[in-house]
Amino acid sequence: MSKYMISRTAKFSSKSGLPPGTPVYTGDRTPEDSLLSIICYDEESYKEKIEANLDDFRELSGRAGKRWVNITGLANTQMISGICSLSGIHPLTSEDILSTHQRPKIESFDDYIYLVIKVILPENNRGFYSEQASIILFKDTVFTFLEYDDSVFEPVKKRLEYSKGRIRKNGADYLIYAIIDSVVDEYFKIFEIIGDRLEEIEESVITSPEPDILEEIYSIRRDLIYLRRSILPLRDVVAGLSKGEYDLMDANTEIFMRDVHDHLTQISETIETYRDLAAGLLDIYLSGISNRMNEVMKVLTIIATIFIPLTFIAGLYGMNFNYMPELEHPLAYPAVLVLMAAMAIAMVIYFRKKEWL
Amino acid sequence: MSKYMISRTAKFSSKSGLPPGTPVYTGDRTPEDSLLSIICYDEESYKEKIEANLDDFRELSGRAGKRWVNITGLANTQMISGICSLSGIHPLTSEDILSTHQRPKIESFDDYIYLVIKVILPENNRGFYSEQASIILFKDTVFTFLEYDDSVFEPVKKRLEYSKGRIRKNGADYLIYAIIDSVVDEYFKIFEIIGDRLEEIEESVITSPEPDILEEIYSIRRDLIYLRRSILPLRDVVAGLSKGEYDLMDANTEIFMRDVHDHLTQISETIETYRDLAAGLLDIYLSGISNRMNEVMKVLTIIATIFIPLTFIAGLYGMNFNYMPELEHPLAYPAVLVLMAAMAIAMVIYFRKKEWL
Amino acid sequence: MSKYMISRTAKFSSKSGLPPGTPVYTGDRTPEDSLLSIICYDEESYKEKIEANLDDFRELSGRAGKRWVNITGLANTQMISGICSLSGIHPLTSEDILSTHQRPKIESFDDYIYLVIKVILPENNRGFYSEQASIILFKDTVFTFLEYDDSVFEPVKKRLEYSKGRIRKNGADYLIYAIIDSVVDEYFKIFEIIGDRLEEIEESVITSPEPDILEEIYSIRRDLIYLRRSILPLRDVVAGLSKGEYDLMDANTEIFMRDVHDHLTQISETIETYRDLAAGLLDIYLSGISNRMNEVMKVLTIIATIFIPLTFIAGLYGMNFNYMPELEHPLAYPAVLVLMAAMAIAMVIYFRKKEWL
Amino acid sequence: MSKYMISRTAKFSSKSGLPPGTPVYTGDRTPEDSLLSIICYDEESYKEKIEANLDDFRELSGRAGKRWVNITGLANTQMISGICSLSGIHPLTSEDILSTHQRPKIESFDDYIYLVIKVILPENNRGFYSEQASIILFKDTVFTFLEYDDSVFEPVKKRLEYSKGRIRKNGADYLIYAIIDSVVDEYFKIFEIIGDRLEEIEESVITSPEPDILEEIYSIRRDLIYLRRSILPLRDVVAGLSKGEYDLMDANTEIFMRDVHDHLTQISETIETYRDLAAGLLDIYLSGISNRMNEVMKVLTIIATIFIPLTFIAGLYGMNFNYMPELEHPLAYPAVLVLMAAMAIAMVIYFRKKEWL
Amino acid sequence: MSKYMISRTAKFSSKSGLPPGTPVYTGDRTPEDSLLSIICYDEESYKEKIEANLDDFRELSGRAGKRWVNITGLANTQMISGICSLSGIHPLTSEDILSTHQRPKIESFDDYIYLVIKVILPENNRGFYSEQASIILFKDTVFTFLEYDDSVFEPVKKRLEYSKGRIRKNGADYLIYAIIDSVVDEYFKIFEIIGDRLEEIEESVITSPEPDILEEIYSIRRDLIYLRRSILPLRDVVAGLSKGEYDLMDANTEIFMRDVHDHLTQISETIETYRDLAAGLLDIYLSGISNRMNEVMKVLTIIATIFIPLTFIAGLYGMNFNYMPELEHPLAYPAVLVLMAAMAIAMVIYFRKKEWL
Repeated sequence: MSKYMISRTAKFSSKSGLPPGTPVYTGDRTPEDSLLSIICYDEESYKEKIEANLDDFRELSGRAGKRWVNITGLANTQMISGICSLSGIHPLTSEDILSTHQRPKIESFDDYIYLVIKVILPENNRGFYSEQASIILFKDTVFTFLEYDDSVFEPVKKRLEYSKGRIRKNGADYLIYAIIDSVVDEYFKIFEIIGDRLEEIEESVITSPEPDILEEIYSIRRDLIYLRRSILPLRDVVAGLSKGEYDLMDANTEIFMRDVHDHLTQISETIETYRDLAAGLLDIYLSGISNRMNEVMKVLTIIATIFIPLTFIAGLYGMNFNYMPELEHPLAYPAVLVLMAAMAIAMVIYFRKKEWL
Repeated sequence: MSKYMISRTAKFSSKSGLPPGTPVYTGDRTPEDSLLSIICYDEESYKEKIEANLDDFRELSGRAGKRWVNITGLANTQMISGICSLSGIHPLTSEDILSTHQRPKIESFDDYIYLVIKVILPENNRGFYSEQASIILFKDTVFTFLEYDDSVFEPVKKRLEYSKGRIRKNGADYLIYAIIDSVVDEYFKIFEIIGDRLEEIEESVITSPEPDILEEIYSIRRDLIYLRRSILPLRDVVAGLSKGEYDLMDANTEIFMRDVHDHLTQISETIETYRDLAAGLLDIYLSGISNRMNEVMKVLTIIATIFIPLTFIAGLYGMNFNYMPELEHPLAYPAVLVLMAAMAIAMVIYFRKKEWL
Repeated sequence: MSKYMISRTAKFSSKSGLPPGTPVYTGDRTPEDSLLSIICYDEESYKEKIEANLDDFRELSGRAGKRWVNITGLANTQMISGICSLSGIHPLTSEDILSTHQRPKIESFDDYIYLVIKVILPENNRGFYSEQASIILFKDTVFTFLEYDDSVFEPVKKRLEYSKGRIRKNGADYLIYAIIDSVVDEYFKIFEIIGDRLEEIEESVITSPEPDILEEIYSIRRDLIYLRRSILPLRDVVAGLSKGEYDLMDANTEIFMRDVHDHLTQISETIETYRDLAAGLLDIYLSGISNRMNEVMKVLTIIATIFIPLTFIAGLYGMNFNYMPELEHPLAYPAVLVLMAAMAIAMVIYFRKKEWL
Repeated sequence: MSKYMISRTAKFSSKSGLPPGTPVYTGDRTPEDSLLSIICYDEESYKEKIEANLDDFRELSGRAGKRWVNITGLANTQMISGICSLSGIHPLTSEDILSTHQRPKIESFDDYIYLVIKVILPENNRGFYSEQASIILFKDTVFTFLEYDDSVFEPVKKRLEYSKGRIRKNGADYLIYAIIDSVVDEYFKIFEIIGDRLEEIEESVITSPEPDILEEIYSIRRDLIYLRRSILPLRDVVAGLSKGEYDLMDANTEIFMRDVHDHLTQISETIETYRDLAAGLLDIYLSGISNRMNEVMKVLTIIATIFIPLTFIAGLYGMNFNYMPELEHPLAYPAVLVLMAAMAIAMVIYFRKKEWL
Repeated sequence: MSKYMISRTAKFSSKSGLPPGTPVYTGDRTPEDSLLSIICYDEESYKEKIEANLDDFRELSGRAGKRWVNITGLANTQMISGICSLSGIHPLTSEDILSTHQRPKIESFDDYIYLVIKVILPENNRGFYSEQASIILFKDTVFTFLEYDDSVFEPVKKRLEYSKGRIRKNGADYLIYAIIDSVVDEYFKIFEIIGDRLEEIEESVITSPEPDILEEIYSIRRDLIYLRRSILPLRDVVAGLSKGEYDLMDANTEIFMRDVHDHLTQISETIETYRDLAAGLLDIYLSGISNRMNEVMKVLTIIATIFIPLTFIAGLYGMNFNYMPELEHPLAYPAVLVLMAAMAIAMVIYFRKKEWL
């Protein structure tokens, strides 16, 4: 996980020295084909142009109706610059689109709103990976820019294509809502996974506090730190979108945004809850280690305390002095054996009283 | 307990992909009979229709007077949708009613207020379970939706049926107050139980720090995390209801709401107090473990330090060298015994001085 | 101490089910005689009626001049209800007076202010007990309700009786100030006691970290949690009284209230300071335990490390093999003794170098 | 250090029972001579009357020009009361001047501002002591009241006497600034000392974690708690003085006050930094202890694990059974020696592999 | 690193006693040559005068166009005083320029803004050093004052010289932006280094928790404390510059400043993230130590528990009593050997069951 955290600052510094506003791609993708797709829709019609190019974009952007322009893969900086300048997007924004280590934010420009959010998707069955989504809302057009994978937008596309409900009737601002909502729904899956991992630890920490539990707790804490960083700022962004601060947002859509804000509040509480639980599990683990060491020490002490004095006595009568009268007596040996047994029993009773046995 | 926490997010994600506003039941109940009961009352009369159906609802909702419509069990989504659309409840609200993993909140719509609160009831004599209550306040009608169990509303129903006091005279907003008040009163019982558990721990942690105390402390911490999450947001909700933010609340009822707000403030302080106490008990426990280990180590060290040198001396005179002049001397054996006793006594004095004995 | 904390919530729940505004005594006193005393005073005269009854109250409340009505012991709910209804006190207030587990608060009603504060008095020479005081300020009358013990009001009474200064000249609001000031002065005594206890611990934690120190630290932390809960809300109450929020408070008296507010700020800082100190002492204690264990381990290790190898050598020459040429040599025994001494000395030098000796 | 903390509350309670506004000296000085000095100055002239008395004060306070009246030593309550009543200082203020356990504060009265600040001076080369300074600013007169020692004012006096710059030209408000500035400059010296102590600990905690380091860390933490308490409230006081809240402060002087505010912000950050560093050093120390114990344990374990089995084998062939065929064989003894050496070497290899050696 | 922290307060106190506004150099440089360079530029022309003196300054400051005056090295106080008084810079500002232990701040004067920021540059490949930069913005002139090294300004100078873009067209406020932006870009490099160090620790803490890891963690924590102190206040400074609080900042430049503010927010989150990670690594480290000690203890206990009883039995039959019948029996020796083996095997089974082996 830490690669996200480190690379994030590492990339930033690779830009220093350049004048601000220079678009440089800071992600870790090779400059392969960036896929451009353009969806034109209104209440009645839906048309999707996939694997489009700049000419398609030029042509389609002149028409009436609403548009959703999606670019997946940011290495083709030329195309992205072209789209940005054709659409009147500010140089600082096009620079931010390519700089993939931003925190979620919202910026208002003269005729558009610029949003940065983090798409977080499950990977394998225990981890997750993260990509940056830039979203730009003009009056009738929505631009989305993704780093690797646009599968998170599939449900929205499907709804746009097959349903003729709210999503087709309402303006581009409702599409923005649908996009953010689908991203936030993915977050819940991530926390489901982390919740499962916490539950696993919880079960094993009490039965057998093995050292790898510690690594697992640390890994969860690190994941939560990263998720908090990626998700928490989004709550403020969405709060702004639901409170009438932006003219491009319709009052009706704001009610739906309020719902997303509720979900994000819930997620941020879940993060805090999981952090508290992880801290509690660490306490249990450490104390389990202490308990175990205590038990080990008790065993050692009991054995040593019983046998060391006995061994001393045995050693005593193993000495080779010429004059040791006890050695001659026929009952000496059984007497010593009885004494030893008595000492051992006394010790056991003592440990019983101390509740060590 | 953790099942609440985990299932809560787990269920949320099972909805992702659906358009917002689609009512899906996210609780863990099978679709058995949801019970609908309708109480019509005014200052003079009281009439209760239990096991009602949609037709009863349609008929009774046309009449004059105040109404309390309660649905227990949310699996019958058809009936709930019917009631919602008949009453002019927004689709987002009816979706929220069925989604049982929400945090306490208040939402104001054109002609009603929508409240989500958590009913928490004791289970066995140490635990508790939680269900979500949705409350909707129209001018003359109160809707309540519960997941499993409406016993928490019994005292309010009784008062409504038998008393002709404030609850019958005042409007539907006072009924809302009475309902919330009865839910909050149940919270106190939960904290009484947790307080008892803390007191038990406190007594045993000093006399005998057993490992299961740690599990118990962790379990209390987890319970408090869950309770804080379920209760704290309600305080803000009630604060809103007591400060004239909602037209549907009468100024007179607001004074009573202020009282509920006081109780919730007290509860939230109790949560913090209990968290602090639990943290303090954990410190005591861990230090008790350390003390015990210290004591074990002292016993081992005392025994070993006294007997290991003596055993060495015994071993020395157990050697089989031909030429060992001491062995011949008649007083050698008693002299060695005296030497050994002196060494043991010196050690004991040393440990006394070190306060280990 | 924890009895306060637990009983507080326990009692609350015993009321659930009753309609709000029903006066139920929730303290732990038996319904003995509640003592009613009425003091009538103005700049010139002072008259006290002790062990008064409702008739006395009725008679005296008609007269001109200022009045201080004090009830000690809340079990006589009938008398208290009588006084409340005669004086026009709201049912919620009279319910609150009897419910003795409230947090400090201030409530403003049409013609009076209602205050709840905690009187905390030293008990034995190390502990303290707490009782709730309800204070009601009308234009010319002050009501005070105490659970057990009105000795905290003695200095105020004395001043009212013997001095003809400010307290007699000024209005009832100044009397309220004098009462709160005398309660807050008692708080300082409590913190003096806790300060002494902290100092005792500080002295002994370094010289001898005994397990009972831990209990003492825990007990101080619990006391501070309880005191914070009982005192901190009062600061906000007094802040309100000193800032012109209440018409019944004279601007002149507000300057004096500002002084009480200063004291409470100082107390709240003392609480935080003591919490920090207690946490620091816990760290010292735990580390003292570690140091001791370290020292014990060192002694054990030194003894064992010196003598176990020597014992092995002795054991070696105690073997009974027929062919062991060393045993025959006349200088073998002294040579082995020298070897042993050399080994012991080498060990001691090694431990010196390691700074274990 | 803790004497300050404890005595502070102790003294307060010795006043309880007295009517507010009664001047009682709560410091720990005996009623020796309080020294009164009066400086009259304007742009042209400077005159100082040391060891003045009330008559001098009466005479000089009538004259034109600016005045600085300083009283060092508060035991002569009569003189102080006299000065206060002659100058029209409110009884609550004169009470506060004598009560030497206040927190820094500012209070505005009709024709003067009353300031309490803590003068903190180095003592020996590691500690410090603290005294309370009360400062009263009238239009043309500054009063200062100190408990023990007015050396902190020396640089200001010198500047007033010898320089004809800003301090002589500007009003009494600038003198207040100069006084506070000189007090704050002393704070930096204190933190220099604490910084040195932290650096000393830092050097020795890694090389040799001795128990006295812990005491030193605790002592620094306690000092920082006390300093925070004494200094932090002053920042708010000075913020008020630099923001035009007080008519007696000239806009020009406020720019200088802003500079003092900067210094106090810096000091408060230093306090937090030092607290963080002290906490970090404690972690290092505790972990150093653990490391050492680990090392001790390893030595013990290595020695015991190598020699205990060898001793057992030696013991085995020390048994006196009649029939032990090995004992007869001429090569048995060397074989056993070889076996023992092999075991010892195997153990050493094992420990190497475990990285214990 | 701690030298920065300590020297910072140490130097401050060396000034106490002097009247405010006296320029004293508080850095640790010897009074070598301070280098003055003056850049005159406008959209068309660029001219740089390096190693300039006061006369050059006088001459060039009269001309039209924009100017950037940079002084590197503050020991030549005479020259700096000269420049300040020629430019109408307030004495408090010129004092602050020389006092190199300030926190980042912004101060607004009649015709200029004064900024203090910290330049932090990597040193070797693991550490960093810090110097103070004072920046003064007049309408057409920018002054910058650096302690040691102006390499951080190189990229800005290059851009100013070779590009004819925004930096030449826009006013002096844009130059300020470019300067701050280049300083902030350097911060990212520092955090890249710290991120690498954290990653190194992360890798080694799990495989081999050596004591030097602790020192490294402590050193990172100390660095983060220092960096937070140096960087966080800058965020508020930049926030002010981006929100229209200063007339000298153009609205257009404020958009760029908003970008710098974003970067600083990101950095401040990185600081918190790294602090959390360092705390988590410390937990892992400490627990790794515990695990290791546990393992050591287990080895010791297993060896001791198996061999101590066996040694006792061997000692028993090494006793020299005359009457020990077992010794005579021919099968006694093999029987004892079998008994010993059985005991050892039983022990091993017991430890297997306990999961110690």
